[in-house]
Amino acid sequence: MNYPVGCMVYSFMRPNILKMEGYVPGEQPQEDGYIKLNTNENPYPPSPRVAEAITEVLRRGLQKYPDPLATKFRKTAATVLGVDPDWILAGNGSDDVLTIVTRAFVGEGDQIRYPYPSYLLYSVLAQLQNADSEFVLFEKDWSLGSSFWKEKERLKLIYLANPNSPSGTMISKDVIKREIEHLRCPILIDEAYVDFAEESCLDLVREYEHVMISRTLSKSYALAGLRFGFLIAQPHIIRELRKVKDSYNCDALAIAGATAALSDQEWLQETRRKILATRERLMRELRGLGFDVLPSQANFVWCSHPERASKEIYERLKARKVLVRYMNYPGWGDGLRITVGTDAEVDGLLNSLREIL
Amino acid sequence: MNYPVGCMVYSFMRPNILKMEGYVPGEQPQEDGYIKLNTNENPYPPSPRVAEAITEVLRRGLQKYPDPLATKFRKTAATVLGVDPDWILAGNGSDDVLTIVTRAFVGEGDQIRYPYPSYLLYSVLAQLQNADSEFVLFEKDWSLGSSFWKEKERLKLIYLANPNSPSGTMISKDVIKREIEHLRCPILIDEAYVDFAEESCLDLVREYEHVMISRTLSKSYALAGLRFGFLIAQPHIIRELRKVKDSYNCDALAIAGATAALSDQEWLQETRRKILATRERLMRELRGLGFDVLPSQANFVWCSHPERASKEIYERLKARKVLVRYMNYPGWGDGLRITVGTDAEVDGLLNSLREIL
Repeated sequence: MNYPVGCMVYSFMRPNILKMEGYVPGEQPQEDGYIKLNTNENPYPPSPRVAEAITEVLRRGLQKYPDPLATKFRKTAATVLGVDPDWILAGNGSDDVLTIVTRAFVGEGDQIRYPYPSYLLYSVLAQLQNADSEFVLFEKDWSLGSSFWKEKERLKLIYLANPNSPSGTMISKDVIKREIEHLRCPILIDEAYVDFAEESCLDLVREYEHVMISRTLSKSYALAGLRFGFLIAQPHIIRELRKVKDSYNCDALAIAGATAALSDQEWLQETRRKILATRERLMRELRGLGFDVLPSQANFVWCSHPERASKEIYERLKARKVLVRYMNYPGWGDGLRITVGTDAEVDGLLNSLREIL
Repeated sequence: MNYPVGCMVYSFMRPNILKMEGYVPGEQPQEDGYIKLNTNENPYPPSPRVAEAITEVLRRGLQKYPDPLATKFRKTAATVLGVDPDWILAGNGSDDVLTIVTRAFVGEGDQIRYPYPSYLLYSVLAQLQNADSEFVLFEKDWSLGSSFWKEKERLKLIYLANPNSPSGTMISKDVIKREIEHLRCPILIDEAYVDFAEESCLDLVREYEHVMISRTLSKSYALAGLRFGFLIAQPHIIRELRKVKDSYNCDALAIAGATAALSDQEWLQETRRKILATRERLMRELRGLGFDVLPSQANFVWCSHPERASKEIYERLKARKVLVRYMNYPGWGDGLRITVGTDAEVDGLLNSLREIL
């Protein structure tokens, strides 16, 4: 490996780190004025209970360390989900949860598996562990062939984003149940978008110790800025994962805010209803403009236009201060992932598209 | 390895995780009424600017992802420290920073080194990487012998808490500078307590690419509940470490609060002055009660009583709702680490000690 002159310290760094690219998150413009439909944030403000709970913690002060196990959050989430609190691990965003699970199961030379195209972070997590990644291409209809469910010598963990990003499609719980019956390898079902979908695999955790489910408050609860996610798994798994997490991985404000958010299920249902209505309208209008649009079970839609390059559309939208996500998956293809915003934001997008096309 | 019945999934988990104990943080009683002098929290509320800044973020909303690089914080910290912003990596507490550095440098079968007794987390970080730990005993006068500074085949990272916990002692910058001149191995100087000390090793980072310094806002800035720490290192190191961190490792509230805290150096100096005055009084009074007390450069003191077992004193204090930290280091010995609280808290401690002794 070639090091820059004077960079002796690189010779002490792990080669897998030096050679990797690193995950590139979607653009987060720090200035205002954008219609931001590129990172699947919720366009509506979170439940008002969140700010109340955070303000209350601020009033009591931040000098003391937070509860290492986020007990209040786990109790509230447990009630909402119908599991016991010791089935839940809280994390600093679901990325933290994915990191913890990966570090617990995957060592150097081990292998992970994930479908493709999907969340790009999975391969980064493997690279950080100096492990190998195996990806299995989705079929044309966004189902998964049998090779996705096969045991393999060093395979230690399977990731499945469900609903999937960028496609917004789902593998049904029935199919997953049928396949995991014959699988011993742990599978992490990443349900970041499940609150916008028709079903969840939560039941499977109760039945199978090798099924883990991750959730985030970033999307459906409108708390991307707060960093809070959690894992649901059987208690003997959670117990081991606690050793891997940073002692105080969730701060006092985030714990309070996340607890308040989960406690307001009425807010969630109302927000979900609005986003699903806008999603249906967005899909219809995009089709009217000639786009190929996949049916979505998430808070975004995946589309491309048969006559125009996706990258060009992305760039022209950006010039008009409308940000969508241009995704290019080597060996597979590209397209646009468009977050479902407010009705006004979607109108802004559609107007810009009409000008461009 | 013996797995509980039905725990097939343990056979997929990394053996180093299964066999480790995990880090046990100090007690965090969730009920009130304790004089809490066990986890080195600051007894004074943080700068009022912190709550103002957090409230302003709350007002703007939490729907959007935070800045992945905490740019505002880095700019403010850079001004305070006299370095460029690209010399700074922000983390979810300094534990996150230590984790990131460890994952970048230390792979399976590699080795880390740290002094003993010191921060117990270092060996846990090594275990999580399935790496080996080598500890070098402090000399009787809390200096470090030459073996601490020797290169060694698989040695990839040296940790040095400076000031050290539990002793509150320091290795002087002059000594460190003299030793690292002949060392190529990266050294992470953990300056969690440095704002209570007489000097810092910050200068050394400018001169040596293998020196990294971690800081936390938990102690001197009274923000243990907020989880914010940072690393100072040369930009070509920071660039690699960014690949290892979670994309959005610091939340929007923490970034705003930490930035506000750093911007109020007047508050820091005033709080430091109060804590140092109370520390001197606490040391004097403990000595008056017959304790052996080490001179401290931190916001805690390390002591033991020649006639009474430390564990017994700890337990009797706890029964009186006074929490101090009982530390027992196998192969070395035990003692009490007592955080410098407010004057009233220290009076409460001293009164209880007078009853006990």
